[in-house]
Amino acid sequence: MKKVAIVGGTGYTGVELLRLLARHPQIEVCAITSHSEAGKAVSDIYPSLRGEYDLAFTEPTIQTLAQADLVFFATPNGVAMKQTPELLASGTKIIDLAADFRIQNIETWSHWYGMEHGCSQLVAQAVYGLPEVNREAIKSANLVANPGCYPTAVQLGLLPLIEQGLIDTDYIVADCKSGVSGAGRGASVGSLMCEAADSFKAYSVAGHRHLPEIKEQLALAHGAPVGVTFVPHLVPMIRGIHATVYARLNEPSTSLESIQKIFEIRYQNYPFVDVMPLGSHPETRSVRGSNICRIALHRPQGENTLVILSAIDNLVKGAAGQAVHNMNLMLGLPEATGLELVPLSP
Amino acid sequence: MKKVAIVGGTGYTGVELLRLLARHPQIEVCAITSHSEAGKAVSDIYPSLRGEYDLAFTEPTIQTLAQADLVFFATPNGVAMKQTPELLASGTKIIDLAADFRIQNIETWSHWYGMEHGCSQLVAQAVYGLPEVNREAIKSANLVANPGCYPTAVQLGLLPLIEQGLIDTDYIVADCKSGVSGAGRGASVGSLMCEAADSFKAYSVAGHRHLPEIKEQLALAHGAPVGVTFVPHLVPMIRGIHATVYARLNEPSTSLESIQKIFEIRYQNYPFVDVMPLGSHPETRSVRGSNICRIALHRPQGENTLVILSAIDNLVKGAAGQAVHNMNLMLGLPEATGLELVPLSP
Amino acid sequence: MKKVAIVGGTGYTGVELLRLLARHPQIEVCAITSHSEAGKAVSDIYPSLRGEYDLAFTEPTIQTLAQADLVFFATPNGVAMKQTPELLASGTKIIDLAADFRIQNIETWSHWYGMEHGCSQLVAQAVYGLPEVNREAIKSANLVANPGCYPTAVQLGLLPLIEQGLIDTDYIVADCKSGVSGAGRGASVGSLMCEAADSFKAYSVAGHRHLPEIKEQLALAHGAPVGVTFVPHLVPMIRGIHATVYARLNEPSTSLESIQKIFEIRYQNYPFVDVMPLGSHPETRSVRGSNICRIALHRPQGENTLVILSAIDNLVKGAAGQAVHNMNLMLGLPEATGLELVPLSP
Amino acid sequence: MKKVAIVGGTGYTGVELLRLLARHPQIEVCAITSHSEAGKAVSDIYPSLRGEYDLAFTEPTIQTLAQADLVFFATPNGVAMKQTPELLASGTKIIDLAADFRIQNIETWSHWYGMEHGCSQLVAQAVYGLPEVNREAIKSANLVANPGCYPTAVQLGLLPLIEQGLIDTDYIVADCKSGVSGAGRGASVGSLMCEAADSFKAYSVAGHRHLPEIKEQLALAHGAPVGVTFVPHLVPMIRGIHATVYARLNEPSTSLESIQKIFEIRYQNYPFVDVMPLGSHPETRSVRGSNICRIALHRPQGENTLVILSAIDNLVKGAAGQAVHNMNLMLGLPEATGLELVPLSP
Repeated sequence: MKKVAIVGGTGYTGVELLRLLARHPQIEVCAITSHSEAGKAVSDIYPSLRGEYDLAFTEPTIQTLAQADLVFFATPNGVAMKQTPELLASGTKIIDLAADFRIQNIETWSHWYGMEHGCSQLVAQAVYGLPEVNREAIKSANLVANPGCYPTAVQLGLLPLIEQGLIDTDYIVADCKSGVSGAGRGASVGSLMCEAADSFKAYSVAGHRHLPEIKEQLALAHGAPVGVTFVPHLVPMIRGIHATVYARLNEPSTSLESIQKIFEIRYQNYPFVDVMPLGSHPETRSVRGSNICRIALHRPQGENTLVILSAIDNLVKGAAGQAVHNMNLMLGLPEATGLELVPLSP
Repeated sequence: MKKVAIVGGTGYTGVELLRLLARHPQIEVCAITSHSEAGKAVSDIYPSLRGEYDLAFTEPTIQTLAQADLVFFATPNGVAMKQTPELLASGTKIIDLAADFRIQNIETWSHWYGMEHGCSQLVAQAVYGLPEVNREAIKSANLVANPGCYPTAVQLGLLPLIEQGLIDTDYIVADCKSGVSGAGRGASVGSLMCEAADSFKAYSVAGHRHLPEIKEQLALAHGAPVGVTFVPHLVPMIRGIHATVYARLNEPSTSLESIQKIFEIRYQNYPFVDVMPLGSHPETRSVRGSNICRIALHRPQGENTLVILSAIDNLVKGAAGQAVHNMNLMLGLPEATGLELVPLSP
Repeated sequence: MKKVAIVGGTGYTGVELLRLLARHPQIEVCAITSHSEAGKAVSDIYPSLRGEYDLAFTEPTIQTLAQADLVFFATPNGVAMKQTPELLASGTKIIDLAADFRIQNIETWSHWYGMEHGCSQLVAQAVYGLPEVNREAIKSANLVANPGCYPTAVQLGLLPLIEQGLIDTDYIVADCKSGVSGAGRGASVGSLMCEAADSFKAYSVAGHRHLPEIKEQLALAHGAPVGVTFVPHLVPMIRGIHATVYARLNEPSTSLESIQKIFEIRYQNYPFVDVMPLGSHPETRSVRGSNICRIALHRPQGENTLVILSAIDNLVKGAAGQAVHNMNLMLGLPEATGLELVPLSP
Repeated sequence: MKKVAIVGGTGYTGVELLRLLARHPQIEVCAITSHSEAGKAVSDIYPSLRGEYDLAFTEPTIQTLAQADLVFFATPNGVAMKQTPELLASGTKIIDLAADFRIQNIETWSHWYGMEHGCSQLVAQAVYGLPEVNREAIKSANLVANPGCYPTAVQLGLLPLIEQGLIDTDYIVADCKSGVSGAGRGASVGSLMCEAADSFKAYSVAGHRHLPEIKEQLALAHGAPVGVTFVPHLVPMIRGIHATVYARLNEPSTSLESIQKIFEIRYQNYPFVDVMPLGSHPETRSVRGSNICRIALHRPQGENTLVILSAIDNLVKGAAGQAVHNMNLMLGLPEATGLELVPLSP
């Protein structure tokens, strides 16, 4: 039985970690911390977890956290980097679900996140926690940067194409749509039911923080910079991300069937990527509550533009589930342990 | 490993049975039938179940069904009763998720369901599958009538009060609210997103088929007829039932704390009923996807009217989950097997 | 052309007043105030109003407000009462959409609203702005208390019964359901899309501030105290209130048809109450965006309990629309001016 | 007072026409037809219209329709073309809200709509009813093809760019999202609340009928064929279309400000197109219930890809509102009559 702690357990990624870990057969959650809710029982804040945990929220001290084999930071950006050096030194492994270690280029990070990096010396040793790319590196990592939700959906849809050099990497369009839980559990007018329900809009079109993450990772896969236009949208639903990615084929003669085959081979050993049959349209509800990414390929009207559809649950494969996946790898457990979740549909 | 079959697997209770049984460690689904979809793979109709089942839908023949240790009927009312005699004779146990065996009074049944009963000789041997009342009888039953969704929520909220003679049974109000999945997966205008979303209404106020079921079962608990006004409403959500039940206390001196204690004791050995602390307000999402019924008690302004709040997931505790619970009891398995589901929230 | 001003224009009742007054042929909005948004254009905060107003939000000074013939207070409870004496003295009429003047009993008000009343000397001269009760008094009033949303729906459903002495006034149940806009536009976790959508719950069962308002007004109609159990619920929709009211008939021989007739006569001269045919089930969407209250009567199973269904749009008949109605009466305009709104459905 | 008739009044475009025309000061709806509902009162089918119409649905005979000055066909594709010759001959003007006359190329039409055209001789004289392009032609037309909802949103976002030759017309991406009302009021499983709510998906990626309409109209504006990848998506909301259009600038030196100016000038005389300030993100709810199209321009990261956001209410500007606009033009009425609708938000 391994021990884990969760820092910042009152957001949606925190409660989702609790949901997943409640049934993980080899994990005990030894602490969950929150400044604002310290002293309150988990089940008082989250009635859905009544009967699952005896824990109460506590203050996030190093002493508490260092007891754990692994600590999840489910905190706002800029928090994990402050406690990381001391925790790592104590022998505790770390998964940051925020963005502190997602971008290798420190300058880029500071530009997009609007602050100095408090722990830049450790960024290089952080492993980007997308198991479909870095599974082996994650196994031996002490510090993992859990990917952003949009970057997860977009990369899984593009990696086979970029790795095989099939598309024009100068002009990729990633039109992405997210449920409202992506905005977190903070009280903000824009996330109110009456503001977000029964409506649809784009946001942050000028520039969203997930853009540099997408570009850095795709550039690594490509071995050169990549041009991406990324537009996020807010969907009146709770969970789910759907990426609709548009790319030009380098060779018009490449058949859709051959690309389908490339995707199937690429992901055949990755249990959480489902390449659907040609002609499919993945719905976000078909992955609701699960760690699966479903992908489908299209070539509308036989023209030269490939359309890749990629759907995940932003709180699972886009956050807490991927974090548990990374935890399993880091702690030497079978990678799917605790993640055999059947999607909830309808 | 026990074998089960599902008749009528294309409705919401059918697919929910598949979701639950996919992870049941001691059950194999050997057949799932559907006239309309015969020949199609389960995963083609339900992409959320891709990778979970190799099954295709087949025609519901007795030969196919008789191979199973137990058959679930997730069919419209009036179907199960036709195949029941032959199946029981073949040694297969049966759980009917529809209403064919829910009401002991055949005349009442025919009146409310608008047809002759096709198997009235077996009604008396059918056990009403509310484990919180009939656990022992269910264990030895061959034929179980799975309760209606509203009756489950209402009875669990009222049983301790009626059993203890605490309330005026002449005038009970059960104001109930259901998500749209309660109307089934049939294509009807009233269940369209554009008709049901962002709106609220009562329906069937003059009389709903779950009324005689509620009255018959409560009368059994009371030992005499019971007066209930039952009004169902349609909530713009997918899953969930919330019953708000109003009852007059026989003795104004009975304290709310003592009633709370009675509820806690009544349900202490029933793993799927959660009596919440006084002052709680159960949300349907706090049981989403789980087999739990959460109950909370109130006595507004200290007056003589007791308000009982009872929330379930209509597709789980109100249908497929309760059916799996009954199946476990009937097949001699630990009763919670396969039902340790953490609610999905948010 | 009459001039009106709106104090506190950034909440949902404020923007709804703006929507309604934008097309009112005899009204000019001369000022809209907000501390927090002072200086910003109305159309910057509310893009739905682009092209409708040139106004910017300003500070709520007496000088600004006193220019108006009538001032709407769309502010939190406790604000209007502070500016009321000075404004009335300046000759400006006032409609308070909050609760400061809704309850005549000052002690009751202080108990439920948790503060001293800052203007108790004017409470007695305030007219309760339910035009179906006080039309004539409103016409000559300088200070009108706009009713609460729940009290509007409940009273309209009960008044004919109480006025005619038809029901047992000791035991009335008002099971009420509201869309999330009833909670206002303040940023609170409970009103987030991810907390309120796809779920249903009761709230404030122990006691809600609209209870004393309902009881005081019904007692006035009855000439004696009235016993009401009032339970509000939160519906995952934006707008709408649905009250399901249960009352015992004094005389079982009273026919439902005769009660229907009494309702039709009672409301025949009130343009915003629609008594639907027997057997109807009003949907909240059938009044969405309009000032209409639709009512339907039922007597389930012919038993002694009457069920009254009453549906309004909480932001219109439950707030801004009723305020405009009151304004029309107070300013001597035809009462329906600007309120001929066809409901938006679907 | 002009007389109009509506054929096929039981769908969402039919009831939306009724909503709009109920307050049109110069129009009387003299007939509304429906095979399936003939004999029923409009207010029985649509309680939201209670008190607005005395009409009952009738059979769609030529005699009935020919009394009208103008007939709206709110019917499925393939219906209007059968009655058009006779009606035109009788002197009645026609607006078809379906697709029978939207595409000039008969072969293309037959390919996409899967039937022979029943009235191909009249296609050439039909005017494509996008007032922002064909206002003058519509004024003198007897037969108007009301545009599709997606084509309306996409064209309004692209026309100024194509007319001015600013973008690479070989590779345009139109990523479009629609509320569920776009699928109509027919009872289909895919449009059920439980199938469409709280989820998101693309559909018809291989090819959607609005693609040839978009391409034909943009080609007309361009004077040459245009390459468009069009992917529609289903949003869990009732009303609204949001198009996110991606286009490459021909000249990187063209400033966003200059393009903004071009849009503002292009639409300055068109009352229903709102070019929002740079940096805006139109929400569909900001046009809910109104005939407005709101457009905003972006050039993310200063790169060469222009992003145009275009939002309409699919039932108003995308259907019934645009039809009323066309009707006003055809009947010589001021074009905005009856369409001064303030959006309903929240």
